[in-house]
Amino acid sequence: MVNETQHSCNASSSSRSDGGSSSGSESSKDNSRCSTPVLDADRHERLREKMRRRQDAGDKWFSLEFFPPRTANAAVNLISRFDRMGAGGPLFIDVTWHPAGDPGSDKETSSMIIANTAVNYCGLETILHMTCCNQTKDDITGHLQKAKRLGLKNIMALRGDPAGEEWEEEVDGFNYAVDLVKHIRHEFDDYFDICVAGYPKGHPEAESYEADLRHLKEKVFAGADFIITQLFFRPETFLKFMKDCQAIGITCPIIPGIFPIQGYHSLRQLVKLSKLEVPQEIKDVIEPIKDNDAAIRNYGVELAVSMCRELLDSGMVHGLHFYTLNREVATTEVLKRLGLWKEDPRRPLPWAVSAHPKRRVEDVRPIFWASRPKSYIYRTQEWDDFPNGRWGNSSSPAFGELKDYYLFYLKSKSPREELLKMWGEELTGEESVFEVFTCYITGEPNRNGYKVTCMPWNDDPLATETNLLKDELEKVNRRGILTINSQPNINGKPSTDPIVGWGPSGGYVFQKAYLEFFTSSEIVTALLKVLKKYELRVNYHIVNVKGQNITNAPDLQPNAVTWGIFPGREIIQPTVVDPVSFLSWKDEAFALWIEQWAKLYEEESPSRMIIQYIHDNYYLVNLVDNDFPLENCLWQVVEDTFELLN
Amino acid sequence: MVNETQHSCNASSSSRSDGGSSSGSESSKDNSRCSTPVLDADRHERLREKMRRRQDAGDKWFSLEFFPPRTANAAVNLISRFDRMGAGGPLFIDVTWHPAGDPGSDKETSSMIIANTAVNYCGLETILHMTCCNQTKDDITGHLQKAKRLGLKNIMALRGDPAGEEWEEEVDGFNYAVDLVKHIRHEFDDYFDICVAGYPKGHPEAESYEADLRHLKEKVFAGADFIITQLFFRPETFLKFMKDCQAIGITCPIIPGIFPIQGYHSLRQLVKLSKLEVPQEIKDVIEPIKDNDAAIRNYGVELAVSMCRELLDSGMVHGLHFYTLNREVATTEVLKRLGLWKEDPRRPLPWAVSAHPKRRVEDVRPIFWASRPKSYIYRTQEWDDFPNGRWGNSSSPAFGELKDYYLFYLKSKSPREELLKMWGEELTGEESVFEVFTCYITGEPNRNGYKVTCMPWNDDPLATETNLLKDELEKVNRRGILTINSQPNINGKPSTDPIVGWGPSGGYVFQKAYLEFFTSSEIVTALLKVLKKYELRVNYHIVNVKGQNITNAPDLQPNAVTWGIFPGREIIQPTVVDPVSFLSWKDEAFALWIEQWAKLYEEESPSRMIIQYIHDNYYLVNLVDNDFPLENCLWQVVEDTFELLN
Repeated sequence: MVNETQHSCNASSSSRSDGGSSSGSESSKDNSRCSTPVLDADRHERLREKMRRRQDAGDKWFSLEFFPPRTANAAVNLISRFDRMGAGGPLFIDVTWHPAGDPGSDKETSSMIIANTAVNYCGLETILHMTCCNQTKDDITGHLQKAKRLGLKNIMALRGDPAGEEWEEEVDGFNYAVDLVKHIRHEFDDYFDICVAGYPKGHPEAESYEADLRHLKEKVFAGADFIITQLFFRPETFLKFMKDCQAIGITCPIIPGIFPIQGYHSLRQLVKLSKLEVPQEIKDVIEPIKDNDAAIRNYGVELAVSMCRELLDSGMVHGLHFYTLNREVATTEVLKRLGLWKEDPRRPLPWAVSAHPKRRVEDVRPIFWASRPKSYIYRTQEWDDFPNGRWGNSSSPAFGELKDYYLFYLKSKSPREELLKMWGEELTGEESVFEVFTCYITGEPNRNGYKVTCMPWNDDPLATETNLLKDELEKVNRRGILTINSQPNINGKPSTDPIVGWGPSGGYVFQKAYLEFFTSSEIVTALLKVLKKYELRVNYHIVNVKGQNITNAPDLQPNAVTWGIFPGREIIQPTVVDPVSFLSWKDEAFALWIEQWAKLYEEESPSRMIIQYIHDNYYLVNLVDNDFPLENCLWQVVEDTFELLN
Repeated sequence: MVNETQHSCNASSSSRSDGGSSSGSESSKDNSRCSTPVLDADRHERLREKMRRRQDAGDKWFSLEFFPPRTANAAVNLISRFDRMGAGGPLFIDVTWHPAGDPGSDKETSSMIIANTAVNYCGLETILHMTCCNQTKDDITGHLQKAKRLGLKNIMALRGDPAGEEWEEEVDGFNYAVDLVKHIRHEFDDYFDICVAGYPKGHPEAESYEADLRHLKEKVFAGADFIITQLFFRPETFLKFMKDCQAIGITCPIIPGIFPIQGYHSLRQLVKLSKLEVPQEIKDVIEPIKDNDAAIRNYGVELAVSMCRELLDSGMVHGLHFYTLNREVATTEVLKRLGLWKEDPRRPLPWAVSAHPKRRVEDVRPIFWASRPKSYIYRTQEWDDFPNGRWGNSSSPAFGELKDYYLFYLKSKSPREELLKMWGEELTGEESVFEVFTCYITGEPNRNGYKVTCMPWNDDPLATETNLLKDELEKVNRRGILTINSQPNINGKPSTDPIVGWGPSGGYVFQKAYLEFFTSSEIVTALLKVLKKYELRVNYHIVNVKGQNITNAPDLQPNAVTWGIFPGREIIQPTVVDPVSFLSWKDEAFALWIEQWAKLYEEESPSRMIIQYIHDNYYLVNLVDNDFPLENCLWQVVEDTFELLN
């Protein structure tokens, strides 16, 4: 009878045996289950395990390759692209290694720092390429140690292009990718997942196709976990290669590298570098339209879609690797047409989870950084433990100071001129600031006809969820309650709700209403009188730049404002209003007035002095309505405040 | 403006300054707030702080004195009395020290073990008396170390009665209580709260009333935190004493000891021991009715009530200490008439919190031990950390084996003869067992006319909450689904709900429906088929005595089944269904069939073999309906199962 059932697990073991009737009456002294909640199994797996699981489940997946940018501005844009393309659900991205560009350095354009940003700030599983020729063992080890320190877990081990034309093997040096694979396994054991390159047509420098297959096998046997191939133009090229690999005993995953042709020039350059030949049937199409970029891209998309379909239909291919050339349109279109692009990605938590292995248990954050998650990650990067289950469990979390407002991954995407158009070339008083806030909320153009699409505290347009509160927010901003963060109350919506849902399906999500704003001391005086009426219902924290702090929070305890109840799980409470962290946040929130806004204007200019005045005299206020099943009372609190003032 | 507000706290300090406008823009590097949630401030305070807080709040309180019992059976009864009288809400209880009864030993009747049981198993703040004369320093230190190890935090330091008639001071020995006070402070610093005795009429052996007051002052200045007085018969005796104490500079709390006269004999004995004189007006009333116990008790209650009222009305008295003589009726009545007895005590958590300081952060437990909390405490007494916030955070909790089913605090209150009447002198088959379960649920007498008021898994009658499920439970028990634990689903009832509420007011409590039962393998086979239909909604664990275990719990994760949302707090989830702990529980649950039931019958007797058969062949099943906002589906699951069987 027991054999009919699906899962069966033994008392003292966490492994499941399907349909088993394992017995063991011993009590569970050595309980080896995971001691942290696994809302998304993903987070606790290494890349090769994710690949295997997706393959076992019959799930097709894709990955994206990027190269490091040349300039700091391009780096800012690339990070935005990571965020946008990350939303489509790649299994991983990879970042190429440019030996000429000081790839292991701390420059914002280095391969290392771009990969670091992808992992830590964009939450993307990332493979860092690394080449080995013309480098010393110590260099390589140094790079690998740094990668490990930064939370990178995957390396694509490559030989790279030898420096001189007349390259000769060095004795005991890194002459081939296999040397790098061996070195990684020797020095770092099983820490990294290792990827190696496969050449469906054989490496151009190999004696023969067969010899190249043998080299590939060596790389795999030296410890590589999977293979990504060089680009190719015909599906049969890849399928033959894959069969040949299997025939000589290569059993690890082999992922085809897909190159959607995006322009005549880039195709020619790539072909030159890769020493591949473009098939005549492709040349025949492209040559006549070589000056028509759109036509070439359309053709490239068609070609890629049909090739990918054939690969997937073969049943041998489970994932596709895209050479994006750092561009979005073509790859995204191919993926959408293949049905691989996630239109509505399920969020495991209300905020984007960082991919650093140290943060894998993290599941609580203060709500204050909701619109500045990268800043939160930056300021907490030195933490040894991340709050898990309960914020209050983490002892004395100290936030790093935020002084580097211009770190590229924290920087506004918009240049100064654009910001001035949005926030005003010239401010005439506090009211003109109220107007900017109001335009940001409504989406209406400002008096000069420009839409306000970002604010110092919000780099992106209003969240869908905040839209639920739009009318109320507009009203209060017009009158000088300058809102920077808010959420509606939610009393048990399904976890699959498209707007407020998160976590696995079958659950229910809840929120307490939250409102955070800057406002003048006159309004604060009235607000405090009004709040007396709401004493048991509304928790408040009111602070100015000097740290004067007024609160009714009991014992400085955090207040959970977002939580979810899921089948078979403990309760997840991913956002809290934490009185202690609020004081770290207020330093940042006040500084943004100056760093992002006031500094747009000349020193001593009236515009700058207006912002400085607000910075010096306004209060930062947050309000929580604890009575989540009832109608949100915070609007009434604000209404009462205005009434008292009149 | 800021000065109008109530609470104000500085960035880097957890202390509040009322109405303050302290400033500090430093970010909170040293956050000294309590890192655990304080649902009940009480739990984190020492006794003297609780006393002070109650006094500041104008709350009147009471405490209860007990002496250690003479026999093991009396100990069982005393523990039940602790549970019942604890429900009335004493600030503390105290346990006297009987030098002749080996008071520091591990015997179940020793002062030490009774106090240990009160603290750890009944969750009562407890003072252990300790006398010092005729004892060595090492003895005393040993007792104190043991008390500390057991989690006792309060000592009543007494001299005790010298052994011989001709007592002489020992040089360097413990001659007076003050020596013990000094010793405790010297050896244990501030660990213990220390209480000393005060004599409103002066100690019988003191040279004078004034000399005795001076001795009392010495005790206080040596480190005593508060004073409990010897009994007295007239309120003015106490009030004068208190004024005299204050006049010589004794400022600590002085708690009047109240002795409700409960019988002629006990009064005479006490008077003899205490060398007090009974006032003539009392003698005049009592002598004529000395053979009428009820009349004396009534008079005693009247007298105590009127004396207590006078004391409380004086405004000088905030707490009353009752000499219970281990009896309930008179003291309870006095307290009820004074309005000090808590009729509906608010529960800080759904289960009774242990008073051991090591467990003060504990706020999660598996639901399985809901009706056997003392067994849970016993089996987890060796834990270094207690789960807090999330069960899954505690790594590999190993449960101690439960072999000592006859430990007095785990023992059934009913003797064998009574159990046989309830559970059947002779069983004729599994059906007679079904009948016992059904009678326990319905409260109807069994076929022999006896009510079944306890079961091996439940020492008390059905909980009020379980009554909500009575009809359904009756139906299923009749048919062989032998329920031992259950709770209804709750979708956000106020935390003040008289039946399911717990925690501070202003919150909301939730539950997932839970059902736990023993049943035959035939029913399990059908149940498993039915459960397939409910796969995503219902989590199940099904196990037999051999440890064969069938579950659909994801990754062995715990499932929160009771949780509460409170103003300004993180979420509290005090009960979980934990797959790993369930296997420790099942050993206990199956063993109770044998230890508590089968062993009532002769070996080889048919009755014993029936219970043994159930033990060997039945399964223990638990079911959770994850969809708490919908109607509980577990009854439908059971219904479907019976239908499938027909």
